[in-house]
Amino acid sequence: MNKYSLGLDFGTNSVRALIVNVANGKEVATAIYEYETGQKGIILDPSDPHLARQNPQDCLKGLKFAVRVAIDKAKKMASDFDAKKIIGIGIDTTGSTPLPVDHEGTPLCFHEKFKDNPNAFAWLWKDHTSTEESAQITELAAEEHPEYLAKCGGTYSSEWFFSKIFHCLNVDPEVFDAAYSWVECCDYISAVLTGTSQPEKMKRSRCAAGHKAMFSNEWGGLPAKEFLAMLDPKLGELRSRLFHETLTSDIRAGMLTEKWAEKLGLLAGLPVAVGAFDAHLGAVGSGVAPGTLVKIIGTSTCDVAVWPSNEPLADIPGVCGIVDGSVLPGYYGLEAGQSAVGDIFNWFAGTIQPGGKEKGSHDALSEQAEKIRPGQSGLLALDWNNGNRTVLVDQRLSGLLVGQTLHTKPGEIYRALIEGTAFGALTIINRYEEYGVKIAEVINCGGIAEKNPLIMQIYADVMGREMKIAQSAQTCALGSAIAGAVVAGKQVGGYATFPEAQAAMCSIKNVSYKPHLENHRIYQELYKLYSQLHDAFGRKEWSGKLFNVMKELLKIRESQTRED
Amino acid sequence: MNKYSLGLDFGTNSVRALIVNVANGKEVATAIYEYETGQKGIILDPSDPHLARQNPQDCLKGLKFAVRVAIDKAKKMASDFDAKKIIGIGIDTTGSTPLPVDHEGTPLCFHEKFKDNPNAFAWLWKDHTSTEESAQITELAAEEHPEYLAKCGGTYSSEWFFSKIFHCLNVDPEVFDAAYSWVECCDYISAVLTGTSQPEKMKRSRCAAGHKAMFSNEWGGLPAKEFLAMLDPKLGELRSRLFHETLTSDIRAGMLTEKWAEKLGLLAGLPVAVGAFDAHLGAVGSGVAPGTLVKIIGTSTCDVAVWPSNEPLADIPGVCGIVDGSVLPGYYGLEAGQSAVGDIFNWFAGTIQPGGKEKGSHDALSEQAEKIRPGQSGLLALDWNNGNRTVLVDQRLSGLLVGQTLHTKPGEIYRALIEGTAFGALTIINRYEEYGVKIAEVINCGGIAEKNPLIMQIYADVMGREMKIAQSAQTCALGSAIAGAVVAGKQVGGYATFPEAQAAMCSIKNVSYKPHLENHRIYQELYKLYSQLHDAFGRKEWSGKLFNVMKELLKIRESQTRED
Repeated sequence: MNKYSLGLDFGTNSVRALIVNVANGKEVATAIYEYETGQKGIILDPSDPHLARQNPQDCLKGLKFAVRVAIDKAKKMASDFDAKKIIGIGIDTTGSTPLPVDHEGTPLCFHEKFKDNPNAFAWLWKDHTSTEESAQITELAAEEHPEYLAKCGGTYSSEWFFSKIFHCLNVDPEVFDAAYSWVECCDYISAVLTGTSQPEKMKRSRCAAGHKAMFSNEWGGLPAKEFLAMLDPKLGELRSRLFHETLTSDIRAGMLTEKWAEKLGLLAGLPVAVGAFDAHLGAVGSGVAPGTLVKIIGTSTCDVAVWPSNEPLADIPGVCGIVDGSVLPGYYGLEAGQSAVGDIFNWFAGTIQPGGKEKGSHDALSEQAEKIRPGQSGLLALDWNNGNRTVLVDQRLSGLLVGQTLHTKPGEIYRALIEGTAFGALTIINRYEEYGVKIAEVINCGGIAEKNPLIMQIYADVMGREMKIAQSAQTCALGSAIAGAVVAGKQVGGYATFPEAQAAMCSIKNVSYKPHLENHRIYQELYKLYSQLHDAFGRKEWSGKLFNVMKELLKIRESQTRED
Repeated sequence: MNKYSLGLDFGTNSVRALIVNVANGKEVATAIYEYETGQKGIILDPSDPHLARQNPQDCLKGLKFAVRVAIDKAKKMASDFDAKKIIGIGIDTTGSTPLPVDHEGTPLCFHEKFKDNPNAFAWLWKDHTSTEESAQITELAAEEHPEYLAKCGGTYSSEWFFSKIFHCLNVDPEVFDAAYSWVECCDYISAVLTGTSQPEKMKRSRCAAGHKAMFSNEWGGLPAKEFLAMLDPKLGELRSRLFHETLTSDIRAGMLTEKWAEKLGLLAGLPVAVGAFDAHLGAVGSGVAPGTLVKIIGTSTCDVAVWPSNEPLADIPGVCGIVDGSVLPGYYGLEAGQSAVGDIFNWFAGTIQPGGKEKGSHDALSEQAEKIRPGQSGLLALDWNNGNRTVLVDQRLSGLLVGQTLHTKPGEIYRALIEGTAFGALTIINRYEEYGVKIAEVINCGGIAEKNPLIMQIYADVMGREMKIAQSAQTCALGSAIAGAVVAGKQVGGYATFPEAQAAMCSIKNVSYKPHLENHRIYQELYKLYSQLHDAFGRKEWSGKLFNVMKELLKIRESQTRED
């Protein structure tokens, strides 16, 4: 008898429910709910472009809708399907997306008092209001606890847990004081479904805590109270109301409550896995394993690898996270990424739009770009239009294009932008390998990997490696479903471990992209030049003279961007 | 009684005839003839994008047409006008535009044998086929006669006289051997009009010879025979068939022949001035004087200054020419310039065309750019899309844009490109002043100066100087007419010297552009960053690490640009 698992994938703009056949990974039905608050589910502030918040109510409403629709669809798709055959639930969300909650674990934004205060909502991963706080945290950690930074690439980001909480304390102490605790969105969802919302009961994700909250059993969990208190005494006090234990996603957060079973049309008591971040479960759903890098390519990328926890592994400078069990239990999860990839192409086609809407479309530009040989345009681009996540970990960087003549054509620039992101991707692989994490296989997933042969071929040619493509078009939700199958366990038709589940449920497409050696040879030359620009504009120690150019431009820009 | 002078301005695509009232510079009538050979008057070679030749027959045909039309128009415009009241003729042409001629001074391309051979035509200034030869000449001169290079900015260009002749010798010895001599276009025209075409009789332009053929009385005229013979013995032999004397444009090349007087509808015996280059007579027509820089702003720029010949003047590295009498007799003419200015804006609006034809037009982009404060876009551009003429004298450089984000808008890039050219212009002024040539006044002329207040205001703000605009919209032709008035002489209603003629015939517009000090302050900050990029990518001694990036990209590009 077929058994099914339910994967729930809470994204930036929508939630997706996926029902998967546990035996073979076949995706039976999927449903999506678009969030309704704010702009495409994001609460914005016209006076502060850095602010991005989310309404947890959207997640709950969308969850109910998407699961019910998915079940209905599944009934139509598979004649034997029955919601009772679902054996487990897995959850992934964006992150770090923390929200302030009260003693009961209820989001403060659900209180009448705070219902219009963005600071009481979930602070979406892409909220960039907390740059000053992240700089303070980085500086203090560098002095007092360099080990905290060593596992997160050497810089604590403004996108992360404590930067956001600290910023809330600085700009809205009323919200901070009203918050009993703060929880990551992935923990909030699993807690709601399993009736464990009280912060003391709530099961916290190793993935979220390890990658974003400097949590490690090496130093006894969260950063020391004394450390947090040096930032602000109130932050020090908060520590004891956060959490002391974290769990991997092969562990149950609890069992589905009666109430939610009814709302969703599922059996009460179903095991629900501890939540994790979308990219990490996406890597699971793509088939991540030792020696296999998974590249999740969308507007930005996440480049995920794993390494056995019982084998020695150096700190890898610039790799934003190395966390035991954050991807696969028993392995360090390693997370790197590029701050913008698809976003750069979208900027060129959408905002610059060379030649107009039609001529400047992705399709038209790709058609031109395809005809150009490597190096033929004479152009070279840095892929930093949204800063650099790996290996420089520096948001205060910007794009660069060099080699323009009076004859440079839009398709040539488009191709140079693609190549720039490929060089950035190669820099990440090289960094992994320099520190001993050999990458024998690259599996790509995400919209660009699925739909863009030109980009994938350029990636293969630049990296000199075969680019494989994950079979699933929804690897995050599939990864969640795999977690659901694992927490269900073997005796009900699930699996004992992630690797067992992956072996049955993951696969790659027949089509892959193999490097053309002649192109790779040229790209090796171009990569040397890319590296020169990368180091000159990105590394102080390499070239003090140019290192400041991008930063000074940003400073001048900020001083000149006044309210009119 | 009103007296008139005729200015003839032979451009890249057309010839213009201008009739001017000698007393006050009033422009009575003008007529233009578009050349008909090739593409807009330029003979191209589909297999070699560097080739650009011109048919001297176009010049002669156009001359006749334009003068006759101008005379007809003048009769309608000024009731007292009569072609007999024209007292002198001046000539300017593009350059270096040399053409091979026979014993009689007839262009080889007029011979049946060579009528289809582009090498037998005039080698237009923008012909870039001779880069290898120019490198050889520069190298040999650096070793053997560094003084030859000192006056032409340290590098002998592929656009210049001997590079082109040497290239002809290398690629088409038949044409080279058939050529008795080579003459600059400006000398060819004056010779035709005055019946002095035989190379031995022909009056040669100081301006052309000094700026493009390494001619200086300091070392006895043209480069030594031994020097030329080291490049190729045949070049050494050619020297004696070229010229030994050069003249300034206040000297008569001769008198108008009966034959040409009839063709043009003028009096025979009219004095014709020795020819000069368009930019140099354009500077005269704009009012160039000691302390006054004239910027001729078009697709590229020419930045002309003068310095008294009897006062000491250092060699100015990177200034492409310092020649006694090339602009005003009795003064050194100093020529600098930017390889692309209007061409860069045309590239962005015409080839990139952001948002399409309408949204990407100059007007629409200017409207956006105007609203942006200095520094507000965070962008910075190098203005090297066509190489750098001054002060780096390096064609193997390319454009660069830095500071792009995911939100960068076309109008911001357009403004950054304008600012980049302004920073390039400031670099030239600074170089003049570093070597003692104080610039107290800047007069602009050319289409951009006339028609683009946005660009002129940015130039004023970047340079911290008032930008004045020459009154005439055709300063080159006016400069030629001034030369015509000077060779006519005082007794027939002309003038004894250029400054006297300029005082009467030149003026500036009432509208000028004064710097906003707040903007200038920001631009001073940005200029520091521009200089950092300029030196890193343009100067080997500053940063060996990045200096090669643009050159390596060009090399790779060339290796990848194969015939398909």
